Amino acid sequence: MTIITDPQDMQQDAIKSFGQKTVGFVPTMGALHEGHLSLIRKSKQDNDKTIVSIFLNPTQFGENEDLSNYPSVIEEDIKKLEGLEVDTLFLPNKKDIYPETFATFVTVEGITNKLCGLSRPVHFRGVSTICTKLFLLTLPTVSYFGQKDYQQSLVIRRLVKDLNISTQIEVLPIIRDADGLALSSRNVYLSANERVESLKLNQTITQAENLVRHGEKEAHAIKTFIKEDLSKSSLIKIDYISICHPETLEELTVIGNHVLIAVAIYIGSTRLIDNCLLSK
Amino acid sequence: MTIITDPQDMQQDAIKSFGQKTVGFVPTMGALHEGHLSLIRKSKQDNDKTIVSIFLNPTQFGENEDLSNYPSVIEEDIKKLEGLEVDTLFLPNKKDIYPETFATFVTVEGITNKLCGLSRPVHFRGVSTICTKLFLLTLPTVSYFGQKDYQQSLVIRRLVKDLNISTQIEVLPIIRDADGLALSSRNVYLSANERVESLKLNQTITQAENLVRHGEKEAHAIKTFIKEDLSKSSLIKIDYISICHPETLEELTVIGNHVLIAVAIYIGSTRLIDNCLLSK
Repeated sequence: MTIITDPQDMQQDAIKSFGQKTVGFVPTMGALHEGHLSLIRKSKQDNDKTIVSIFLNPTQFGENEDLSNYPSVIEEDIKKLEGLEVDTLFLPNKKDIYPETFATFVTVEGITNKLCGLSRPVHFRGVSTICTKLFLLTLPTVSYFGQKDYQQSLVIRRLVKDLNISTQIEVLPIIRDADGLALSSRNVYLSANERVESLKLNQTITQAENLVRHGEKEAHAIKTFIKEDLSKSSLIKIDYISICHPETLEELTVIGNHVLIAVAIYIGSTRLIDNCLLSK
Repeated sequence: MTIITDPQDMQQDAIKSFGQKTVGFVPTMGALHEGHLSLIRKSKQDNDKTIVSIFLNPTQFGENEDLSNYPSVIEEDIKKLEGLEVDTLFLPNKKDIYPETFATFVTVEGITNKLCGLSRPVHFRGVSTICTKLFLLTLPTVSYFGQKDYQQSLVIRRLVKDLNISTQIEVLPIIRDADGLALSSRNVYLSANERVESLKLNQTITQAENLVRHGEKEAHAIKTFIKEDLSKSSLIKIDYISICHPETLEELTVIGNHVLIAVAIYIGSTRLIDNCLLSK
């Protein structure tokens, strides 16, 4: 595996492959888990070359968020990537990605003012900006994202289309622990107690999904069910419950053929998200 | 000359040349004058292939600006481009560049909140967004801009660097009519009387430049001179007078080795800009 730290070197290397080989790209913030690895395996399977980036992107964290605590285990990450025979790890420094004079941001309007965008106002601006930069540095044929960050994948699809960035976006299913908790680098923050309570998130969403599958069409009824069910745990504080259209993220009154059930909670100081996409 | 209207066709064509040939790109809004043609000639001279785009970009016009009056002479433009043996004209439609779902914008902070950015608050966001799109659709080795829109060229340089867009930016000197008026597609708005008075803009800046060359270091003195000199014309209304650093656009108190003298005026309803860059 080649490790490239300099953005200009990365771009020069990418230009060589551009149009010649199919390149799969998996952008990450490190602390790699099976969710990331599932994206990398898919990339390896479908492309001539796979690039993974690890960059803990400061611009997508708000002032009071967990940037300084975010798990960093770069040596373990490198071993995992070598095990999967990743071709290139792009591992840039903060100062090369955001030099002192840096002043340009990419923003997606509309869909970023909902769900996670409400409690994390600068988050999607940071995600959009870093992804634009990474796409233009790695020039991938296909870029892989996980459905756990559903809204993020929607924002990325939008900006790639709007800015005419030449990459396809593929979104792969949520990977869960055996007990159902969606994998997240943030799960390491959870105490043993909190870890047990966190299972409720997926369980409640699954029950809500079943209600919809069995014919419940009132979004309000589903929301009430989720709210009441999550409230049974004293450790859980609800951030949002959304029953919305999967493309526009507009809240639904009546559930139609396509619906996203998305929930964000706090357990202690850890923020967890999970979702379920239903199409009839 | 090949005329391409579909953005996807443009990008596919550009991908074929990318990394193989040097491509020069001149983005325009049409109504081509000698200023544009000077950029195209330079591109032809320095590159294997030259792409010119004509797109009257609505997002860079404010609500009360001259979008609906902006001159459009596409047949004459095409003749001029054929005369210069331009390889490709990219002539997209508004709905293909900004489909109904379009929601993504590129913004450059800091330098856009000065000079023209103050009287045209959405202007540079529109310029930054369209230029990002055009760069990614045409994949040029070098892109050419004119110094008349000095602040624009600075914004473009900044965003290209910040977003890691793989193109060089070359900024070429202001082209003037024989009487000194900087060429602009907007000059056609001027009545005969206004056309005569408009000469004062360049004359005053040139006199200010001479004051600096002869040792005047007080920015305030230069500003006062420009203000008083322009005020001699009853047709001229000053938008701004800036004596600033050419990189940061910060207003100067004491003029050092590098200075930009930039002025914007209204003559009737026509807004004209001109500038002079001095380095010792």
